[in-house]
Amino acid sequence: MKGSLPPLSRIGILGDGQLGRMLALAAARLGVSVHIFGPDANGPAHAVAAQSTIAGYDDEAALTAFAASIDVATYEFENVPASAARTLSAKTRLAPGERALAVSQDRIGEKSFISGLGVPVAAFRQIDTGDDLVKVMQEGFGPAILKTRRFGYDGKGQVRLSGSEDEDTLRSKHAELTGAPAILEAMVPFAREISVVAARAYDGSFLPFDPAENVHRSGILATSTVPASIDAQTAEAAGEITRKIMDALGYVGVMGVEMFVVEEEGATRLLVNEIAPRVHNSGHWTMDACVTCQFEQHIRAVLGWPLGDPARHSDVVMENLIGHDAGAWEKIAAEKAACLHLYGKSETRPGRKMGHVNRLSAKS
Amino acid sequence: MKGSLPPLSRIGILGDGQLGRMLALAAARLGVSVHIFGPDANGPAHAVAAQSTIAGYDDEAALTAFAASIDVATYEFENVPASAARTLSAKTRLAPGERALAVSQDRIGEKSFISGLGVPVAAFRQIDTGDDLVKVMQEGFGPAILKTRRFGYDGKGQVRLSGSEDEDTLRSKHAELTGAPAILEAMVPFAREISVVAARAYDGSFLPFDPAENVHRSGILATSTVPASIDAQTAEAAGEITRKIMDALGYVGVMGVEMFVVEEEGATRLLVNEIAPRVHNSGHWTMDACVTCQFEQHIRAVLGWPLGDPARHSDVVMENLIGHDAGAWEKIAAEKAACLHLYGKSETRPGRKMGHVNRLSAKS
Repeated sequence: MKGSLPPLSRIGILGDGQLGRMLALAAARLGVSVHIFGPDANGPAHAVAAQSTIAGYDDEAALTAFAASIDVATYEFENVPASAARTLSAKTRLAPGERALAVSQDRIGEKSFISGLGVPVAAFRQIDTGDDLVKVMQEGFGPAILKTRRFGYDGKGQVRLSGSEDEDTLRSKHAELTGAPAILEAMVPFAREISVVAARAYDGSFLPFDPAENVHRSGILATSTVPASIDAQTAEAAGEITRKIMDALGYVGVMGVEMFVVEEEGATRLLVNEIAPRVHNSGHWTMDACVTCQFEQHIRAVLGWPLGDPARHSDVVMENLIGHDAGAWEKIAAEKAACLHLYGKSETRPGRKMGHVNRLSAKS
Repeated sequence: MKGSLPPLSRIGILGDGQLGRMLALAAARLGVSVHIFGPDANGPAHAVAAQSTIAGYDDEAALTAFAASIDVATYEFENVPASAARTLSAKTRLAPGERALAVSQDRIGEKSFISGLGVPVAAFRQIDTGDDLVKVMQEGFGPAILKTRRFGYDGKGQVRLSGSEDEDTLRSKHAELTGAPAILEAMVPFAREISVVAARAYDGSFLPFDPAENVHRSGILATSTVPASIDAQTAEAAGEITRKIMDALGYVGVMGVEMFVVEEEGATRLLVNEIAPRVHNSGHWTMDACVTCQFEQHIRAVLGWPLGDPARHSDVVMENLIGHDAGAWEKIAAEKAACLHLYGKSETRPGRKMGHVNRLSAKS
C-alpha cells in the first residue's frame, strides 16, 4: 500500500465478538470510524460501532454493501470463509490478506508452512480415517492430541491420547470428532508455553510485544504473565520466529504465535504450536501495560499508519474471566492496580470469555 | 445510593463532544451500555454509543424518553440547562447532581461558594453594568479579567484589563461582553497553574489523581505536565481543597479544580481559579499514565462501583491538538512513547480541540 488512510477513514471489521469490540474501541481512540459485520445481533462489537451490519458471512449482497461502505477491511477471527475473504479482497482492501487466512484455517497446511520455513513444530500426522489413526498410533507415535484440521478453538474439537489405547478405543476417540479430517500432534513435554504478539506493516516493518507466558485450563487460556520466565536469548529467538512467519506471509496487522519452550539437556528449544492471524487473547495484557496496545497496533498496521511503540511500562498478569468468573467483577473492581475489562455479553455460559483483568506491578 | 448498578447497566450521557466520546469508550470497556444525548448529528460521541438521541437540551419529550431508556444519567459539560437537569433528576438518577451544576454555572455563585468554605480565591466583584466596571476599576482594583458570569469556556467571553484604562475604554470593553452579567476577577501573579482531577463516590470516598501543571495559550489549555513542579505539601493541600469542595457539594463523579500557585515571601499559597463538575481536559493524561483513567473513574463513581486505582505508573506530558495541530497526526503517531488520541471530528476549526497526545516517560 502506498500512503496511509487518514483519520476519519472507515474500517470494516468482520466479526462481532469481544476482539471486534476491542478493535473498534481502539479505532475510535484514533478518530477512525468503524463498521462491524457479524451474524449476532447481540454480538458485543455492534454496540460500539458507528455502523453495524447483522448478516451471515455467506451473505454476498451484505458483504458487497459492507465493502462499499469502508476504506479497508479486517477481521477478528481466522475462520472467515474463503468466499467472504475473496469478495472483500475484490471490492476493497483486506488486511491481513487471504493467504494468512488460508494457511491458518487448516492445521496441516499451517504446520507444513511453518516447518517449511525451518521453524520447528511438534511431530504431526494427517489423519483422515479411523484406520489412519490406528496405524499411526500402533507404530508407536506416543502421547498425542487429535484435533480437527479446521474450525477448532479454545480446546474444542480436540481429543487427548495417552499412546496406550487399544484399537477400539482409538476408533471411538476418532469418532468423537465425527469423521472430520484431523491432525495428530505429538504431545510436547514443554517447560512452559509462551506467545509472541507482533505487528507487521505494509512496508515490512515489524514490532513484537514482549513474549507472554501462558497457562491454559481445559484448553482455554487462563493467564498470561509478562515478563515470561525465559532468558533474553529465548525471547529474542521467539521474536525472530514470529518475524520469519509474518515475513513469509507478507503479513499486515497483528498476529499471535504460540510456542512451547522445551528444556532438554541444558538447552532451550522453541516449537511453534499455532498461529492466529489476528489480535490474540494472550496479547490483552498490552491494553494496560504498554504505550500502544495490540488492538491499536492492528488498526494502525491495517490503515498503513506508522506502528506504535510496543514498549512495556509495567509488569502484568492478565487473567481471563470465564463464565461465572465475571461474577466477581465488583471485588476485582476494588483491587489496587487492577484494570478490569468486561465485554458486555448478556448471557453467561460456562467456558465463555466474559472479560479479563490486567493486574499491574512495577517493571522488574 | 444503595448498591451499585451491575455491568450491562445503561448510562446516559448528556453531550456529544469529545468528553462524551471518551466517557462512552471508558464505559464500553466496563461492559456498560451507553446512550448519548446531544444536539449535533456530527458530534463525535454519537458514533461510539449503543444508542443515540439527536435533540436539543430543551426538548422535554426527548429528555423524558432518554431518561426512560437508562439507569443513570451524567453529563460532559457544566452548561446543562437547569430544566434538563431537573427533568432527568425527576425521572432517573443524575450524577453529579443539580447542585454541582447550579454552583458551577454562575461564576459569582461559584466563587462565593468556594470562598465560603474558607478556600482562597482571587478577589472578585460582581459587574452588572458599565457603571459598575468603571466604579470598581477607578477604586484601584488593578489588573483584572472581566468574564461573563455564565457560559464561558476556553477563554471565550473574557476581556483583560490592565487597570490603567480610561472610562471610555472600560465602557467599550464591557460592551464587548454584550451586556451579559459579568464578574471582575483580579489577575493573580501566579508562579504556575495546577489542577486536581478527583473522584468522589456515593459513600463519600475520595480519590484524587496527582496534580497536573497546566499551561494555557490564548485561554485554551495547551499542555498538562505530571508531576507538577510543586512540593509534596502543596500537592497534598491541593488534594485537600478539592476534597473540601466535593464534600460540600455531596458530589458524585469526577471533578476538575483549577488552582493558581502563588509564591510570595518564601511561602506557597493556593487560590482556586475555577471548578468543572465533569471530566476535565487537564485529566486527559490519566488515560495513558494511570491504572484507572478519569473517564473510567467517572463512570465507576456514577454507577456506584468501587473507585478505581488512580496510581500513576509513568511521568507524562499531555499536549492538546488544537485546530491544525492535528494535521501532524502521522508524525506524532511515529513518535516513541507517544499515545495519540483523535476525536473523530470532521471539521477542523481554529481553536477547536481535535485530539491530544500523551507523551510518557519513566516515573521520576
